[in-house]
Amino acid sequence: MAEKALTGAGLRGQVAGQTALCTVGKTGSGLTYYGYDIKELAEKVSFEEVAYLLAYGELPKESQLTEYRTRLKSMRGLPQPLKDVLERIPAEAHPMDVLRTGCSFLGNLETESDFSEADRNIERMLAVFPSIIMYWYRYSHDGVRIETETNDDSIGAHFLHMLHDKAPSELHAAVMNTSLILYAEHEFNASTFTARVCASTLSDIHSCVTGAIGSLRGPLHGGANEAAMDLIENMESPEDAEQTLMGMLERKEKIMGFGHAIYREFDPRNDIIKAWSKKLADEFGDSRLYDVSVRCEDVMWREKKLFPNADFFHASAYHYMGIPTKLFTPIFVMSRVTGWTAHVKEQRANNRIIRPSADYTGPEARPVPALSER
Amino acid sequence: MAEKALTGAGLRGQVAGQTALCTVGKTGSGLTYYGYDIKELAEKVSFEEVAYLLAYGELPKESQLTEYRTRLKSMRGLPQPLKDVLERIPAEAHPMDVLRTGCSFLGNLETESDFSEADRNIERMLAVFPSIIMYWYRYSHDGVRIETETNDDSIGAHFLHMLHDKAPSELHAAVMNTSLILYAEHEFNASTFTARVCASTLSDIHSCVTGAIGSLRGPLHGGANEAAMDLIENMESPEDAEQTLMGMLERKEKIMGFGHAIYREFDPRNDIIKAWSKKLADEFGDSRLYDVSVRCEDVMWREKKLFPNADFFHASAYHYMGIPTKLFTPIFVMSRVTGWTAHVKEQRANNRIIRPSADYTGPEARPVPALSER
Repeated sequence: MAEKALTGAGLRGQVAGQTALCTVGKTGSGLTYYGYDIKELAEKVSFEEVAYLLAYGELPKESQLTEYRTRLKSMRGLPQPLKDVLERIPAEAHPMDVLRTGCSFLGNLETESDFSEADRNIERMLAVFPSIIMYWYRYSHDGVRIETETNDDSIGAHFLHMLHDKAPSELHAAVMNTSLILYAEHEFNASTFTARVCASTLSDIHSCVTGAIGSLRGPLHGGANEAAMDLIENMESPEDAEQTLMGMLERKEKIMGFGHAIYREFDPRNDIIKAWSKKLADEFGDSRLYDVSVRCEDVMWREKKLFPNADFFHASAYHYMGIPTKLFTPIFVMSRVTGWTAHVKEQRANNRIIRPSADYTGPEARPVPALSER
Repeated sequence: MAEKALTGAGLRGQVAGQTALCTVGKTGSGLTYYGYDIKELAEKVSFEEVAYLLAYGELPKESQLTEYRTRLKSMRGLPQPLKDVLERIPAEAHPMDVLRTGCSFLGNLETESDFSEADRNIERMLAVFPSIIMYWYRYSHDGVRIETETNDDSIGAHFLHMLHDKAPSELHAAVMNTSLILYAEHEFNASTFTARVCASTLSDIHSCVTGAIGSLRGPLHGGANEAAMDLIENMESPEDAEQTLMGMLERKEKIMGFGHAIYREFDPRNDIIKAWSKKLADEFGDSRLYDVSVRCEDVMWREKKLFPNADFFHASAYHYMGIPTKLFTPIFVMSRVTGWTAHVKEQRANNRIIRPSADYTGPEARPVPALSER
């Protein structure tokens, strides 16, 4: 979007609250969760450890992690009424609408009646979202009712297992693990802020997350990795990529997956997912998508000084793992639910209802005309 | 909530955008929709005219109003899959969760694929929300599958008809009409702001409204009329009301239905609904609830200089019409969907993604400890 000369537009740069969860563009490589740099987290820990960190403020000890994984594993099952609902959503529905409805319906069956239940509900959502999206996807697209209670150790492997009907390779499980870490948390982005506004009315946690899913659905927010895939999938070679992009730039078309609202010089998540995309290309034995992505990166930097954000190399990485493009943004949800719910807890702990003001631009006070005189 | 010494807390007084829809506490009696004073609207027009005004910026001419009413009437039916979903929501679910899920599921069946479809989707939601809430309510509580396509002329009458299995009296239809006008729009309150944050990602209209319903559900926002009912229903007389309130004030208990975040001296909607509550009490032949409400008003003003807000006399008014307390906030949704969706259109017309900043209060940068060293 172009810069607007509108006071307060988008609240850009305005402080809307405090957070201990995350810094963006301030410390270390540019992104930290509770003080830990994203690069180090992506190298050294599992997504489940990051989820635990965001929920409880500290990385888990070994015994805590074991218990946490066991709890999450036990929460993958779908209640029959929720399966019934998912089976009534058409195949052509937007997958984010499926998750939004699945989360909302879950709130009808397992309503949060007291904030002390928050942690249990957060773990349940984290464990069951992959089941919700894959149950619907496989039923509506392949006509099968899958078993969602697999024995996979990680959330990423659970997702890939349900998609492909078999446990994933170590490499694929590792890529999913990293991807989920990278997307977990990002301060007051629009979907997280939606969750906090909702939380500020002291509403329940399913309402907060349902609202956040709806905001992440927007093409200016969560859909960028899908748009990046649309861009690169028809590029036949780096030369073709060069030509296509130059044409788009000349026609001033919007190119998704580059630049960022906060980061100015690079997105710290890019190098990490780019390296995994390269490994996947080598394993896959066809590096076309990776090579065209690298050329896109070069062209965009050379021509516009724009860098790829977290979404751009996710497109090729997900594609190499056989993930359909329409499931890219739902994976974002499976990860970001950790950040959203951590913000909900933080908002609740020091709450004031979020109720800003508006500048009035409408008509002057005027009398109501009779129906016959309008 | 007490005032917090937190910078930017709740964005109070901070301008988050522009609106032509509404002024609160600035002009005339204190609330205007597109320049028309709420008092005059409540006296002279129907809720459908207000809905049209909020959707299109001007009150309808006679022919436009006729067509609009006809369109709305034709949109009351529920698709079978939506009925199936509603039948799977337990009787003890929170009615706001039912509406949130119903709206979200509707978005799966009738997805907004282009913003040019917004007006049609807005009219559909306005027409079908009463059907959604009443179909679920009557099925889960009374075991009947009601016909939602009635011939009632107004949205308020449609709602009461489905609730009581018969068309309402003129008085009851008139009270519902006024009530829906009073709740229709209120600038950047938390649920409306939720809808605008969601709209700012260019998400679809069902996501925006689903999110707003989730925020309105919170007890600091939409639940005040239900809380007012809980307060007054056990008061046996004005003297009992006096004693109860004085005790609550002494124990510093929160008393819902009084005071307002923006209004300082009175809520312009109070006199209007109070007058209707009196008429209903006279018709009903038992003025206990009205009388205790008046005494509460007197005590709160005398002791705390707090005035009743729009919610307080709504409690007795709704109760006199035989509306169960748990349906009070859903009525708020049936009305406020007009304001929410008008704000969505306004946000889309001049958009920048809403992405504020946060003050960081978390740990300093720190290295990731090995699992065995935590």
